[in-house]
Amino acid sequence: MSTLLMLQWMSRTTFVILTILCFLLFSPCRSSKILVVPIDGSHWLNMKIILKELHFRAHEITVLHFGKSWYMSSNSSIYISIHSAMDDKGRDKHGFNDYVQAYLEIYPAFISSFCQQRLMTDMLSDAHVILAKSAEAILDDSVFMTKLQESKFDLMLTDPVLTVGVLLGSYLKLPMVFNVRYINTVEGHFVIAPSPVSYVPMSMSELHDKMDFLERTKNMLHYLYYVYEQHFIINPVYSDVFRKHFPVGTDLFSLELSADIWLLRSDFVFEFPRPTMPNVVYIGGFQCKESKPLPAELEAFMQSSGEHGVIIMSLGTFISALRPEITEAIAAAFAELPQKVIWRFTGEKPSSLGNNTMLVKWLPQNDLLGHPKTRVFVAHGGTNGMYEAIYHGVPVVAMPLLFDQFDNVLRLKVRGAARVVEVRSLTKDSFLEALEDVLENPSYRQNIQRLSQLHRDQPMSPMDTAIFWIEYVIRNKGAPHLQAAGFSLSWYSYFCLDVAAFFMVITGTFIWGSVLICRFLCCRRFSRKIKAE
Amino acid sequence: MSTLLMLQWMSRTTFVILTILCFLLFSPCRSSKILVVPIDGSHWLNMKIILKELHFRAHEITVLHFGKSWYMSSNSSIYISIHSAMDDKGRDKHGFNDYVQAYLEIYPAFISSFCQQRLMTDMLSDAHVILAKSAEAILDDSVFMTKLQESKFDLMLTDPVLTVGVLLGSYLKLPMVFNVRYINTVEGHFVIAPSPVSYVPMSMSELHDKMDFLERTKNMLHYLYYVYEQHFIINPVYSDVFRKHFPVGTDLFSLELSADIWLLRSDFVFEFPRPTMPNVVYIGGFQCKESKPLPAELEAFMQSSGEHGVIIMSLGTFISALRPEITEAIAAAFAELPQKVIWRFTGEKPSSLGNNTMLVKWLPQNDLLGHPKTRVFVAHGGTNGMYEAIYHGVPVVAMPLLFDQFDNVLRLKVRGAARVVEVRSLTKDSFLEALEDVLENPSYRQNIQRLSQLHRDQPMSPMDTAIFWIEYVIRNKGAPHLQAAGFSLSWYSYFCLDVAAFFMVITGTFIWGSVLICRFLCCRRFSRKIKAE
Repeated sequence: MSTLLMLQWMSRTTFVILTILCFLLFSPCRSSKILVVPIDGSHWLNMKIILKELHFRAHEITVLHFGKSWYMSSNSSIYISIHSAMDDKGRDKHGFNDYVQAYLEIYPAFISSFCQQRLMTDMLSDAHVILAKSAEAILDDSVFMTKLQESKFDLMLTDPVLTVGVLLGSYLKLPMVFNVRYINTVEGHFVIAPSPVSYVPMSMSELHDKMDFLERTKNMLHYLYYVYEQHFIINPVYSDVFRKHFPVGTDLFSLELSADIWLLRSDFVFEFPRPTMPNVVYIGGFQCKESKPLPAELEAFMQSSGEHGVIIMSLGTFISALRPEITEAIAAAFAELPQKVIWRFTGEKPSSLGNNTMLVKWLPQNDLLGHPKTRVFVAHGGTNGMYEAIYHGVPVVAMPLLFDQFDNVLRLKVRGAARVVEVRSLTKDSFLEALEDVLENPSYRQNIQRLSQLHRDQPMSPMDTAIFWIEYVIRNKGAPHLQAAGFSLSWYSYFCLDVAAFFMVITGTFIWGSVLICRFLCCRRFSRKIKAE
Repeated sequence: MSTLLMLQWMSRTTFVILTILCFLLFSPCRSSKILVVPIDGSHWLNMKIILKELHFRAHEITVLHFGKSWYMSSNSSIYISIHSAMDDKGRDKHGFNDYVQAYLEIYPAFISSFCQQRLMTDMLSDAHVILAKSAEAILDDSVFMTKLQESKFDLMLTDPVLTVGVLLGSYLKLPMVFNVRYINTVEGHFVIAPSPVSYVPMSMSELHDKMDFLERTKNMLHYLYYVYEQHFIINPVYSDVFRKHFPVGTDLFSLELSADIWLLRSDFVFEFPRPTMPNVVYIGGFQCKESKPLPAELEAFMQSSGEHGVIIMSLGTFISALRPEITEAIAAAFAELPQKVIWRFTGEKPSSLGNNTMLVKWLPQNDLLGHPKTRVFVAHGGTNGMYEAIYHGVPVVAMPLLFDQFDNVLRLKVRGAARVVEVRSLTKDSFLEALEDVLENPSYRQNIQRLSQLHRDQPMSPMDTAIFWIEYVIRNKGAPHLQAAGFSLSWYSYFCLDVAAFFMVITGTFIWGSVLICRFLCCRRFSRKIKAE
């Protein structure tokens, strides 16, 4: 490389540095007031990472949460916590385990995706009833609402999988940013972007983007079920609160589509390519970061594995969802391997546990996945875990249990980066075979490392992207120029059915007129002929 | 701001700086071999800006161009020029003027958008016949093709509005990046992304995104015409070259959709929000840059305008397209204003020219638009000029003449940033009224400055974005993971018409079966009744 080129680059770099410094020092976005309505569980863990970053950039954050929470703290250095009078009476996190058992026990395998969707509907329709009441109680509470209005927030940041933040943000007429993966009953894209069912697999369908005729038929059935569910189960739940507090014609869709930016916890290294919209921003894997050194005890355990390396197992929120016979089978399979195992586990210790397996109540998942000794990640397929596996390039043995986990693990499976084990029929041998396959066949590691390379090859880190767009909405007081005009059309106008009907009437009239004229001419000719005869 | 926070930011900035330095020094993308098949005219001016940047980053660039060119030089320090044996026999750039006259003289105003589209079809179908022959001649030239194959290019970079680059890139199986605005006969989006006609105005339709019933009907007619044009006029032109050189079933669409990245010369400050795809990257305004100081003579002229400021007029490639009576009217209108005027003009000097107007054969458009004395930009509405007006926040008086210019100026008009003057019916008074309106009504300037603010508020500059994605495709040897699976489906599968037919058969069979059973039961009951009687 010539010295001149080098100098040019250096001067360029200086310019970039100065630009960044100016941006950091003179950014007009500091000290904005952000109202956050999060969701509990892993969704909150996600949201909290963004809040930390916003706090670091000196924004004032207010988190509205309900009485009972799994992880949220009322006393935090990064946000002001406010409670509504209403408790969401949400399910205990162990309540998920009942759904897992229900799914595993009751439903036959061949229609499992429909059963999953039905189960999800049951769970979510209960939740939506509670949420609609919570939202109504908050909006009815004039003292609390006045307090919110007087706070003059600059932004509503919410996870719209449950709806209180959406309703509140719309009512307060705040610019709104979604930190979203699911919305109501379906993956976020389906509400905001055209989703041709011929190559865009529905949530819960357990299909991928290359479908044959029968798979497309199945996908269409899932789509029709989703439309039914949305319009006849979920929407009616909110009719009271809309009647009382919103203009006529408001529904859940119109409020959701009024969000300025959708930060979608996904990207196209993971998700199948599909249509998207200008106000959808991809931040999949924003929580991932380089691994930090492990605590001494864990590091010693990792090193003791020698050339064989270590298997990491964690089921996240579903830590205690497996039945004892399954944990026994898993422990027995682990015991037969030369690898060491770190297993995040609660409950009674399996009797078949080998000496190579360490049970822990919590583990530094990101740091372990980034450790050079880690060979395989055994996981339930939650979005966070899958992105961490991609980020660190660790192949996965997946045992999906509920929600989007089946779809998530399928996305790694079709790219040759994961083996999926069916928990319903898991035995020691089937689990061992899957583990040995992923350990011994180098293609799994090569494939996930290719995904890792692509995932890391972005113009900006997903976290910086998220922060940029949050501050963009604050700076510009919304982003209505990114919202498609189609959002405000009636369904028949959206699909141009009125235009199609008009064309059919015109064509019909033309054909009918032509037939009439032909008939008239024929009759005249015929009558002339008779007359002539 | 606390010192701690300041320090944190400083350490962060250092990290960013180091990352950028590492990126610049160790980027694996330098010295790649890029084959470029550009298009002439303003398209080439666009492409050349990107080529300069790629050259600056030490890529080796080879430009394939035909014998006759408007602006391309065979001797360039930034690229190696190669010629094919074939001359494209393309029209002279003044040939556009004939089309402008045809449009202005022949067609009545009320169906102007359809006339525009028809005119475009005429023009492009001629061009496609020449292009198909050129492509065939190149592919038949085994010596030339061997030379290309042996050059082992890493990438094909092409503007696909005309098709030689697309065919050549596909034939050579090179990763392909499009620098695109139009493709065949239509704005790039229409080929790659779902485009609901209810809110996505077709190219040439002169409609915007909020349409009433009649406008949607008009848009649908434009869409149907486009489908007809593509399938029955453009595609058949290439049947010979596909039969000889490509696998069975290849058509223009399948080759275009195989491009890895579409760098679309547009963004959603300018374009109406609409569905897009993961491999579409927006680089609208990538050619814009801060203005440089003007030559002394021009600067003195600008300063001499005092508080009134200066009007800049340029019609780009269409510099000589206006008839003398129109240039007379324009000159007379300018003469009545207190502003000074710089007018890019060739031909006979109008007799009505005022002392305040300077005629020039060429002008530094970007530098003039960025000058604080500039008040209004009088332009034909080419994409480049419109982005420069947005970038510098200068309101526009537009006189569209051909192609996408009508659509472009409409986008500024509906945002209150431009007045559109119909050249067909332009008089001194109408032009003067439009100029005075834009000069005196501050809303035009406020609106375009808001657009400017939004356009500049991006995570990365459009040029850096373009370069990132070109190098991304080189680094990763393509980007098939960003190409939707729907691209490879047949049209009836894409729209799930086979699934719909299947559902109809099932439903029909069910109804028919039910009717048969009911009839059978009724008959039995009836016969029993008769028997009983």
